[in-house]
This record gives sequence, structure tokens and C-alpha cells, in this order.
Amino acid sequence: MTVCAFAHIQVKMGKANEVIEAIKAVNGVKEAHIVTGEFDIIAKIEADDLKSLGDKVLKNIHTIKGVYRTVTSMIVT
Amino acid sequence: MTVCAFAHIQVKMGKANEVIEAIKAVNGVKEAHIVTGEFDIIAKIEADDLKSLGDKVLKNIHTIKGVYRTVTSMIVT
Amino acid sequence: MTVCAFAHIQVKMGKANEVIEAIKAVNGVKEAHIVTGEFDIIAKIEADDLKSLGDKVLKNIHTIKGVYRTVTSMIVT
Amino acid sequence: MTVCAFAHIQVKMGKANEVIEAIKAVNGVKEAHIVTGEFDIIAKIEADDLKSLGDKVLKNIHTIKGVYRTVTSMIVT
Amino acid sequence: MTVCAFAHIQVKMGKANEVIEAIKAVNGVKEAHIVTGEFDIIAKIEADDLKSLGDKVLKNIHTIKGVYRTVTSMIVT
Amino acid sequence: MTVCAFAHIQVKMGKANEVIEAIKAVNGVKEAHIVTGEFDIIAKIEADDLKSLGDKVLKNIHTIKGVYRTVTSMIVT
Amino acid sequence: MTVCAFAHIQVKMGKANEVIEAIKAVNGVKEAHIVTGEFDIIAKIEADDLKSLGDKVLKNIHTIKGVYRTVTSMIVT
Amino acid sequence: MTVCAFAHIQVKMGKANEVIEAIKAVNGVKEAHIVTGEFDIIAKIEADDLKSLGDKVLKNIHTIKGVYRTVTSMIVT
Repeated sequence: MTVCAFAHIQVKMGKANEVIEAIKAVNGVKEAHIVTGEFDIIAKIEADDLKSLGDKVLKNIHTIKGVYRTVTSMIVT
Repeated sequence: MTVCAFAHIQVKMGKANEVIEAIKAVNGVKEAHIVTGEFDIIAKIEADDLKSLGDKVLKNIHTIKGVYRTVTSMIVT
Repeated sequence: MTVCAFAHIQVKMGKANEVIEAIKAVNGVKEAHIVTGEFDIIAKIEADDLKSLGDKVLKNIHTIKGVYRTVTSMIVT
Repeated sequence: MTVCAFAHIQVKMGKANEVIEAIKAVNGVKEAHIVTGEFDIIAKIEADDLKSLGDKVLKNIHTIKGVYRTVTSMIVT
Repeated sequence: MTVCAFAHIQVKMGKANEVIEAIKAVNGVKEAHIVTGEFDIIAKIEADDLKSLGDKVLKNIHTIKGVYRTVTSMIVT
Repeated sequence: MTVCAFAHIQVKMGKANEVIEAIKAVNGVKEAHIVTGEFDIIAKIEADDLKSLGDKVLKNIHTIKGVYRTVTSMIVT
Repeated sequence: MTVCAFAHIQVKMGKANEVIEAIKAVNGVKEAHIVTGEFDIIAKIEADDLKSLGDKVLKNIHTIKGVYRTVTSMIVT
Repeated sequence: MTVCAFAHIQVKMGKANEVIEAIKAVNGVKEAHIVTGEFDIIAKIEADDLKSLGDKVLKNIHTIKGVYRTVTSMIVT
């Protein structure tokens, strides 16, 4: 059973357009949007299990230059 | 040009399963999920323009019994 | 010298349209808008001094039926 | 593989001592503490998978009288 | 060695003046003020130790009618 | 139909006076104030549509040296 | 009539002890404490009026090396 | 009587795996986990008293390279 999450992402000022392209290129990212409000980008991510979703966020999203903070919400149903 | 938003929804304790069914039935709601974290439900909503999206949230989401607080993020791109 | 503040207001679900009319009727409220995001209404309020601005918020805004929480930011310049 | 989470719980004023006893009685709750800060209680919960952990929070924690809001953080590693 | 804390208190709308009088009457409360911003009242509380400070907040502050939420910050130095 | 928003802006420490001058110079900024509370500056911005308001924030506000974080609330009515 | 405020201060990691000494040395700072929770330091500040309190925060607190973010709550009563 | 706390820790992007190893090595840290949500790591820390717990956080956790922000909740019971 795959797991899915919404990652809420804050980016360094002036970097939103660059960062969203890099996020869309991450394997498992289903969609990503620039949004108004507390966070700059909301992305929907899919992975095989909780462990590999955690890895994807820590290794593939957190390491994108310009990503400043992420808050991840697991989809339960 | 239609507008789209993520509505982040807190529900009264014990009401998440009821509320999500009501939200999914709202015209323009594309998807809705129970999630972990600060909010209980994240829904993606589409409307004809900002004004009618505002109306949808104020009149069709806020009035669902068990909805406690909503925070809406407009999709910019 | 008058003082000025932005009041950020959360309202009970389903009450935004009623509440904003009541807020606009408060003496000293210069403008009030329904907004997306963490708060439902942002209003700009003017008063003679800090004490009377505090009174206005505590006695004229907090007592409006449907107002749930307010966070006030004083304008410094 | 079991999954584990920290549930951060706000309780209705005057209910912390009652609520914590009810939380400790929930199957899968490993520990629960009254704490200072943004939340009143932090509990560690274990379940068979993400779906059943979600159920436990929605059906067994949210329904405790006096629980006001919960924010759940999944343990990734 | 006594311990000391700042309690940040949100009150039900329209109750700030009543609540602050009740808070000032709690044994160990050194000062209490109505403030602008995220919280409505900030109070400074002293107790014999962490356990009795927790008790004071849970039993004497949380039980005041009109207190809605408290967030306590322990003074470390 | 033009769209309007409140941008809430945090600035790098020591930069508020410089940043507010730069913000006031952005085309479409109707007013901007240094405020107390969670954010340092609140600005009211007008644009032709949601897309161009998003661009204005991402390209003209986020790129001001000393701007640290922005949270934008769309005015619905 | 003097005005008074609580400044809630976040400091760069490892800098709390240095920063609190610098804050205590600012003219008008009545007390300052290292605390647990969302903020690292809470200080009580007095000034002649709102404008000069704002200046004190912007010019004397924000410019202390190691201060990262401040949130100021005006004392109303 | 020992005191105990949950430290909620945000880390610089890309540093979670390094930081958690350093945190686990701090004397008094009973457990530490990478988690989803607002914070990246939750650790449980024990110390002899409030003062020495504060010292541990300020001197041993805040000084770990890659730690960005910590919010500490004291366990009351």
C-alpha cells in the first residue's frame, strides 16, 4: 500500500519559481503549486511506505537549494 | 479563468469522518483527505473566480456542522 | 496623536457576513475585509490613544456575536 | 512494521487531569504527560499501520470528553 | 528554590476584564496585564516547584470562567 | 476586476526602516506600515488579477533585500 | 503617560546568554528572562510613547547580534 | 527530583540525519526521533533540575551545527 502526503514548503525569498521546478522533478511528486498564505508551495508526494516518504522529503526535497522549511501532513484516508 | 485553492480544515473532535463526506459533496471540491498535523482535512476546491471561491468557502464549507476553522491558500500557479 | 491598529479576526463558522457588518458599524473602524488565510476578517481601527483602542477592541469588537478570536497589531509608523 | 506517533493534545480548561487518565487507557498509548507550552498533553501512540493509527486518533482520542484539538506527528525513524 | 513562569492566556470574547481580576486574585500571581497580540493576558506566576506551578495553572487558572487557552513559559534564568 | 491583498512581512533584524521604503515604492502597493506583533510590516497591494498579484509578491516584494518571510491574505470582499 | 510592552525574542542558536546581557543593557528594559517554549527570551520594556517604544525595539533590540525574531505585545492595562 | 522535557527541534534543510545523531549523544537525552509536521525532531531530555535542563538545551542542543530552532515543553506530570 503506497502512502501519500502534502508537503507545505517555505522557500528563501526570490526562489519560489526555481524551487517549484526542482520539486516537480522529484520522483513521486504528483503535483506542486505556488500558493498564498503561511507557506509558499504545496506539493503532493507519493511513496511506497512511511520510511521511504520520509527519506524522499529529507533527501530529495530538503536538499533543494532555496527550500527553507517543510511541514509534511500524511494523508490518512 | 477558474481559480483553485487548498482549504485546510479543523473539525470538532469526533467529527472528521462525517465532515469529510459533507465536504466531498460540495460542488467544486475536487478532492478531500483526512491528514495528520495542524489540520484535520485538506481539500482542493475550484471556482469561477476569487469572489465565488470565497462564497463557496463561507457558505458551503463553513456551514457544515462540525467544521471548526478553515484556512484557505489560493493556488497562484 | 491618534493611534491605529489592524485587528485580525476569526469568526464562528458561517458568521463572516454578519460579523463584518457589525464590525464596520463600530466607531473608529476605517475599513474591514473578508480575507483568505489564518484569519477571516482584517479591520483597520483608529482611536485617540492606546487605552481607548484597547477598550474599543475589548468592548466593541469582542462583544460582537460570532467573533471568536482577535489578534491586534498596533501601527507604529 | 508498526508505526508510532506523538499526539499533541489541547484540552478544555480544567480537564487536563481527567483527560490524561482517559488517554492512558487507550490501547496503543505507550506514555502520556501533562506539559507546559502550546499543548497540554503529549502522548506516544503505537499502531499496526498508518490507517489504524489514524483510526485510533479519530475514534479513541478525539472522542474523549474534554479533548479540544490534537496535532499528530508521525515518527519517521 | 522557587520557580517562575509567564502564563499567556486567551479569554472568551468579552471576558478580558473579568478574567484578569480573577487571575490577579490567584495566590502566586505576581502581575497580570491585558495585552495586544496573539494572547489577551500575560501573567507572571511564582510557585515552590515545577509540580506546584503546574497545579496552580491547571487548578487555579484553567478553572477561571472565561479562560479559553493558556500557554506557559517557564523562566529558566 | 482588480484583486487586493494584505501582505504580512517579516524582515531581517535591523532592516524594517529600509524595507518599508522599498515596499512603498513597489507599483500597486497602496499603503505599508510598521506594526507590533508576529509580523513587522503590513502592506496593502492591488493588482489586475490573482496571477499578477502573485507575480508582484514573488518578483517585487520577495526580492527586496531584508525581506525574510511574507504571508499574503487575499481580500475576498 | 508611559507605555509598556512584553517583547518575545528568538535568538540564534547558542546565543541566548550573550543576547540577554545585551537586552538587559538597553535603556527602558525593566526585566528580561530566558524561558522555555516558542520564544527564548521575554523582556519587559517601557518607553515614553508608542512611537519611541517602536524605535527602541527596531533600533536597540533588533540590532543586537544574535537576535533572530521579536514579537511585541503592548500592555493595554 | 529530576525534571524531564520534550524538545521540539527544527533543523537546517538537509541536516536531519546528522543532527539526530548529535542529539542522541547529548547526556540526558533519553530518546530522539525524526517526525512529520511542524518540527523535524522530537527528543526527550532528563536533567537534575529546571536550571540544568535549561543549560543542557542552551549549551548542548542549541550549539549543534544544523539546529535551527527549539521549542521545549516541560513535563509537569
